[in-house]
Amino acid sequence: MITQNLAHNIVKLPLENIPGEVIHEAKRSFLNWLGCAVGAHSHPSVSMMLNVSKKFESSSQATLIGTSIKTDLGFAALINGMTSHIFDFDDTFLDTILHPSAPVFPAILAWAEYKSLPGDLFLRCFAVGVEVEQRIAQAVCPSHYDNGWHVTGTVGAFGAVAALGKMLCLDEIRMTYAIGLASTQPTGLREMFGTMTKPFHPGKAASNGLLAVLMAQEGYTSSTQPLEAKRGYCAVLSERPDFRSLEAEWGKDWHIMKNTYKPFACGVVNHPIIDAAIKLKSQGVSPDDIQSITLQVHPLVLELTGIKDPKDQLQAKFSVYHCAAVALVDGKAGAWQFTDEKVLDEDVIALRRKIKVEIDNQICKDQTVLKAILKNGDEAKVFIEHALGSLEHPLSDKDIEEKFMNLTEPYLSHDNQKKIIELVWCLDELSSIKEIITLCQEA
Amino acid sequence: MITQNLAHNIVKLPLENIPGEVIHEAKRSFLNWLGCAVGAHSHPSVSMMLNVSKKFESSSQATLIGTSIKTDLGFAALINGMTSHIFDFDDTFLDTILHPSAPVFPAILAWAEYKSLPGDLFLRCFAVGVEVEQRIAQAVCPSHYDNGWHVTGTVGAFGAVAALGKMLCLDEIRMTYAIGLASTQPTGLREMFGTMTKPFHPGKAASNGLLAVLMAQEGYTSSTQPLEAKRGYCAVLSERPDFRSLEAEWGKDWHIMKNTYKPFACGVVNHPIIDAAIKLKSQGVSPDDIQSITLQVHPLVLELTGIKDPKDQLQAKFSVYHCAAVALVDGKAGAWQFTDEKVLDEDVIALRRKIKVEIDNQICKDQTVLKAILKNGDEAKVFIEHALGSLEHPLSDKDIEEKFMNLTEPYLSHDNQKKIIELVWCLDELSSIKEIITLCQEA
Repeated sequence: MITQNLAHNIVKLPLENIPGEVIHEAKRSFLNWLGCAVGAHSHPSVSMMLNVSKKFESSSQATLIGTSIKTDLGFAALINGMTSHIFDFDDTFLDTILHPSAPVFPAILAWAEYKSLPGDLFLRCFAVGVEVEQRIAQAVCPSHYDNGWHVTGTVGAFGAVAALGKMLCLDEIRMTYAIGLASTQPTGLREMFGTMTKPFHPGKAASNGLLAVLMAQEGYTSSTQPLEAKRGYCAVLSERPDFRSLEAEWGKDWHIMKNTYKPFACGVVNHPIIDAAIKLKSQGVSPDDIQSITLQVHPLVLELTGIKDPKDQLQAKFSVYHCAAVALVDGKAGAWQFTDEKVLDEDVIALRRKIKVEIDNQICKDQTVLKAILKNGDEAKVFIEHALGSLEHPLSDKDIEEKFMNLTEPYLSHDNQKKIIELVWCLDELSSIKEIITLCQEA
Repeated sequence: MITQNLAHNIVKLPLENIPGEVIHEAKRSFLNWLGCAVGAHSHPSVSMMLNVSKKFESSSQATLIGTSIKTDLGFAALINGMTSHIFDFDDTFLDTILHPSAPVFPAILAWAEYKSLPGDLFLRCFAVGVEVEQRIAQAVCPSHYDNGWHVTGTVGAFGAVAALGKMLCLDEIRMTYAIGLASTQPTGLREMFGTMTKPFHPGKAASNGLLAVLMAQEGYTSSTQPLEAKRGYCAVLSERPDFRSLEAEWGKDWHIMKNTYKPFACGVVNHPIIDAAIKLKSQGVSPDDIQSITLQVHPLVLELTGIKDPKDQLQAKFSVYHCAAVALVDGKAGAWQFTDEKVLDEDVIALRRKIKVEIDNQICKDQTVLKAILKNGDEAKVFIEHALGSLEHPLSDKDIEEKFMNLTEPYLSHDNQKKIIELVWCLDELSSIKEIITLCQEA
């Protein structure tokens, strides 16, 4: 009865009882997601997928965020799911490494645009979707991820199903079947990391979730115990599924309150280092002042990101030297600090050669100590206790606004950027989400 | 290099070198498949899925077999993949339990119809697809299936990719990426057996394979070692992958030559019993003559199909009593012998109550001994050494024609049936497969 109980909980949950702080967190998630999606809309993989949609002679039902192009609901969910994740800059649950927004927003956004649904319903259904996907992720992780599944793709479809199924008012048995249909289509092997197929995973999760809901709505049948059965999703895709996370009480602690947002466009392991470099710059130290820099870091930093001399944008994310240098040069480390151009920037190259990295087993994963010796003989020291973006030091609303501004700067007018931010904060009062989608279109 | 070698083999294989016997087996597979697809086209799940395609405002590119309805390529592949498998009556590789046609024909048929491609290319690409999917199935089975994966869905997409990728002349790196894109979208948990989601699996495999090929054609990148990597498909979805089946030489023994076709619309375990009952009838024994029947069977027969008093069509397939009785009453056991109506037929019910089943550990899985005591005191005995449809006793071309006739009888005129059969046997000489598709449309 585990899946049926879950379906019961989703269906019976009174949307109007969702607390205001949850709605606010959903808005933060949406603004963060929107920046990622608009920022990545011109990636080459997007035009490839758009060409594929043309081969299907896709209809024009929903918009590809960042453009005025429309495709059918399925391709809109798929492509917007891809753009969410192309920069690896979307939100994260740190315990499961699930990126909750990427598979959920694209599914409900396509439907909400198509049917002109109000922002309040959109945000509340999103919160339900996040709740379900994170609970299922907790049930199957860590073995699920450790064994090679990309949880954002493989579990994400459940989030899309719960959110969209709620939006479409599926009854309990149809919600159960929709969960079953999602369970039988897990998308995402970790082997695909480093290729265009990684962001394809949340995109396919969104479109599979959409398909599952529309099939279940028609009465298409599936298992009534897809999660818990002997040959069901959790047993087949996990070593030691723990169903307690699914069965725990609803509507008390909302998981979305633990959603985190990356301030920097690279793996979290380098976030304290970047945080420290930006702080150093804000103390008035410029790259020209630097004689040498020593960073004391957690052992994982060198294990995962030890590339001394990165050659392109992909390698840059795996180079602690680039991360520290570009942050001190630019005072930030958004998507545009990890381009091929930046990797080959002379100032950045000169500075990264002055950086030494030392492993310190006393340093926690979200900590670092940065020591700079200046050309004038002075020393500067920055200690980061919890990196910006961690649960202990979350991004403020203002930080998320800035991230959105940075990500969308090459594409949107300042006026549109400001207007979008304003509308997101009052999205629960808007009769339709369409205005935001229109404002996101590149001039 | 395992995946890249496989891609190399697929790309470099000269289609014109495929032997005539392989082409003939591809025709047998196609006629068998066509009967299943036409026969199941009016199943309720098909109209449900068609409604879903309407929600996407799908374009009209390819035909749903058995109808004049067109959808886009993706939905055509999906729905024709479903109808292939709805009756559980499609072809089988007995060692892996892979149903090879269901995920492959729908993908290449949609494309070949859309582009008006010749029958010869269609058949040759099919043989390549079957070769690849069975090799991959052998690499991951039996643990893959034992652990809960429905191999026809999870491996089928590779068959669709190989066949369609060959048809579209993908180069080696694009073929590798297409295999990668298929690998990351495995569809099918065995938990779904007994629901509409089971036939959805080969349908989704066909449409995922189609999508993968069209994406790779655009240059969309994926892993170059999706099958063999530490976190690749085989390691994640199998316990002890054995890559020898992938690496063995090409173009010598074609796997399609071991394809088998079910004569009866139920699990193979009951095939010897049905075979025996039909033989008894052909000896002139009618149901009215019967006092009692005793069947000596392999232990699995009662374990899997021991329902004494089936109530509906689904239970009928799991009742050895119904199987034997209906075969003796009708002289056949096709799809129409497993309807709700037949289960409640008085003659069938009366006869099945006269049947006793005894386990005999000396009897092999494809054997049975049937002993009948007649009302006139005579005894009749039938021994089946290898059931019809087994590798040792395969269906003849004539048997496959009859199966097609039976499956399509309610929908097609006798003339059309005959014409289709004639065209399939000379499909390699047809400039397009369109005529067959048109002839399959219900009057």
